[in-house]
Amino acid sequence: MSKAVTGPEIERLIQILSRLPGLGPRSARRAALHLIKKKETLLQPLAAAAAEAAEKVVVCTTCGNADTSDPCTICRDPRRDNTTIVVVEEIADLWALERSAAINAAYHVLGGTLSPLDGVGPDDLNIRSLVDRVSRGGVKELIIAVNATVEGQTTAHYITDQLEGMDVRITRLAHGVPVGGELDYLDEGTLAAAIRSRSEIS
Amino acid sequence: MSKAVTGPEIERLIQILSRLPGLGPRSARRAALHLIKKKETLLQPLAAAAAEAAEKVVVCTTCGNADTSDPCTICRDPRRDNTTIVVVEEIADLWALERSAAINAAYHVLGGTLSPLDGVGPDDLNIRSLVDRVSRGGVKELIIAVNATVEGQTTAHYITDQLEGMDVRITRLAHGVPVGGELDYLDEGTLAAAIRSRSEIS
Repeated sequence: MSKAVTGPEIERLIQILSRLPGLGPRSARRAALHLIKKKETLLQPLAAAAAEAAEKVVVCTTCGNADTSDPCTICRDPRRDNTTIVVVEEIADLWALERSAAINAAYHVLGGTLSPLDGVGPDDLNIRSLVDRVSRGGVKELIIAVNATVEGQTTAHYITDQLEGMDVRITRLAHGVPVGGELDYLDEGTLAAAIRSRSEIS
Repeated sequence: MSKAVTGPEIERLIQILSRLPGLGPRSARRAALHLIKKKETLLQPLAAAAAEAAEKVVVCTTCGNADTSDPCTICRDPRRDNTTIVVVEEIADLWALERSAAINAAYHVLGGTLSPLDGVGPDDLNIRSLVDRVSRGGVKELIIAVNATVEGQTTAHYITDQLEGMDVRITRLAHGVPVGGELDYLDEGTLAAAIRSRSEIS
């Protein structure tokens, strides 16, 4: 902004909000105004919640989930099937799979994918701890749920290699047409995979 | 979310973020994860900035701008032309006009528009204070920069009526084609106004 239209404290709040994913400079201003208008019901609660989260957030030493307890809510859940571990790239993927309620298993967050060009090697990811987890025994299946990108697939192969000889089933997610997706908008690779993995209409 | 995947403190932060305009439940989770990942550089500063803004924010008793001082930054600016007052519906409109740097005048925020159906009457808006401001003298022009909606125009007419007999020029914003706008997407009213107010190519 060329000229100041409001106090530095409000400008600072706008500036911080504009660094959130999904909020640009314009929507950060709108958000700040909304917060200011609802000082008691939104701005003060946000300040308190952000401070409390900042104070308490920890990374689960077992699976890598972000939580306010270690082990995390999922790792402490006695109703989970801990014989299956879903391996994901990021915490966001873990949360997305949980929302889908597709599986009631344990997780392992890698913290990214192997990417030699970006200088990300095996030691920069939580691969060692995954191998340790499996070698302690009790894990029957590892579902490698990384993104369907070159880096994701490279990482999946590397993990598979590391686990060679261990008594664990290693699987990957199915490829195919997204539910609600239109064929016209899908790439050739997805369509080919969907044809290959076709099933009987029962 | 059906099952908890993380601690209640983080869930609370997500829930508050999801109430910001421009952030839905999904982007609020992304924003929360981003904040958690950048605890020192983003989450803690956000907590501090939100707390400071909540403590210091005030509404300017002269113009209605949100600031941390009263009179606000704009009303205290000695380089402003205080003989012209731009009347806007919301603080966001004031900020938008300031960003455009179109005018270096004073402002008056109405806080909404007259809307009998929603039970918003003249006493619910900052109209009385506007009339007082003008009647104290020194104001040469009032630019009524309300939205080009029925409620906005009704409010503009009501204000004009209230100022009848006072020695002040009352103007409104020009209608026309937005800069960068495509005719094909504009409504008939805008196109008719643009034709009516056409000017010579100099």
